[in-house]
Amino acid sequence: MGMGEETRRAFVIVGHTQPTTPDFTLNDLPGSAGRLDVLARCVTAAFCLSHGLRKDVEVFLVLRDEVVVRFVGARLKRLNPDERSTGALIKHALQALQEGRAQSTPGVAVARWGLGEVLQELRSRGFSLYVLDEGGEDIREADLAARNAFVLSDHRNFTPEEETLLQEYPKLSLGPRVLHADHCIPIVHNELDRRFSPE
Amino acid sequence: MGMGEETRRAFVIVGHTQPTTPDFTLNDLPGSAGRLDVLARCVTAAFCLSHGLRKDVEVFLVLRDEVVVRFVGARLKRLNPDERSTGALIKHALQALQEGRAQSTPGVAVARWGLGEVLQELRSRGFSLYVLDEGGEDIREADLAARNAFVLSDHRNFTPEEETLLQEYPKLSLGPRVLHADHCIPIVHNELDRRFSPE
Repeated sequence: MGMGEETRRAFVIVGHTQPTTPDFTLNDLPGSAGRLDVLARCVTAAFCLSHGLRKDVEVFLVLRDEVVVRFVGARLKRLNPDERSTGALIKHALQALQEGRAQSTPGVAVARWGLGEVLQELRSRGFSLYVLDEGGEDIREADLAARNAFVLSDHRNFTPEEETLLQEYPKLSLGPRVLHADHCIPIVHNELDRRFSPE
Repeated sequence: MGMGEETRRAFVIVGHTQPTTPDFTLNDLPGSAGRLDVLARCVTAAFCLSHGLRKDVEVFLVLRDEVVVRFVGARLKRLNPDERSTGALIKHALQALQEGRAQSTPGVAVARWGLGEVLQELRSRGFSLYVLDEGGEDIREADLAARNAFVLSDHRNFTPEEETLLQEYPKLSLGPRVLHADHCIPIVHNELDRRFSPE
């Protein structure tokens, strides 16, 4: 998968129920597409600013530990803030995978990867990895690097296998309430925006 | 419009391009429904916790300064986190309005109100009102009351008429980047969650 070397923030969203093939309708993302709506909102929360996209962000959607769809902000051209059009980008990526292509639309890549490969790539590129977890250290108190990757789960908890892969990384908490993954992302961005001045 | 006296946080989202009648398709919320997707995401950002809904929240969607759709957490029964089903709740409310009913689904009310009436009601109920604005005081430094209402605009700026109605209220900033309204709401909740312990 192509790299985005200017990336300073990565979000890894671990999906447990979403399809790995494009056989779903955009009219029913929460139902027959297995809560693909959650992942779509995570993508837009990671990239969308009021005017424009965050270029220094990458998102990895891990689907059932079998397929990874990756969004690279530096190359992303088409991303609207709504769920349906973002769901369509994911669908196009899964179509590309079926046809043996690694790239679908600009800035969107796809591979037969699992969580392990994503973590390994991010580590090899020098990212500090963190797991968002309500039992972790308060993000406001944490000593964060300038190049971070945050791992979140979708509407399900991490599986025991995922927990094993993630146990070596520090856990960060955002606050006293347990939130949906897509609502965590703006809070993480906000903390980093306050610490590291915009490009 | 019925009150939710246990409400401690209110969000007023001022919409400029969304329909005031139910003649739109849920398949095209960003387009023919005039960016109704933004308002739908604001509703779910205001209410949805990982497990359950925030009961102490109210949301007022102001549509073209003509119609207000109101969601009361204490009475809300059906709210899924996706845009389409939330868009359907708004559509049902606009249908109710056409048929002369003030209530559509549980916890959702509708009236021929404008921004002025919403501000007046919130003031009369003892809310401290704030306008989210990138030029305001940092929310982390602000002396917030326990019962607050936050006014946000959709993808458009406030009109001069709205600015006039809002000029008496203090402005709060969330950080150095200008964000979509639906991404502001989790950040506001997070700050309040940290200050005021959960019910």
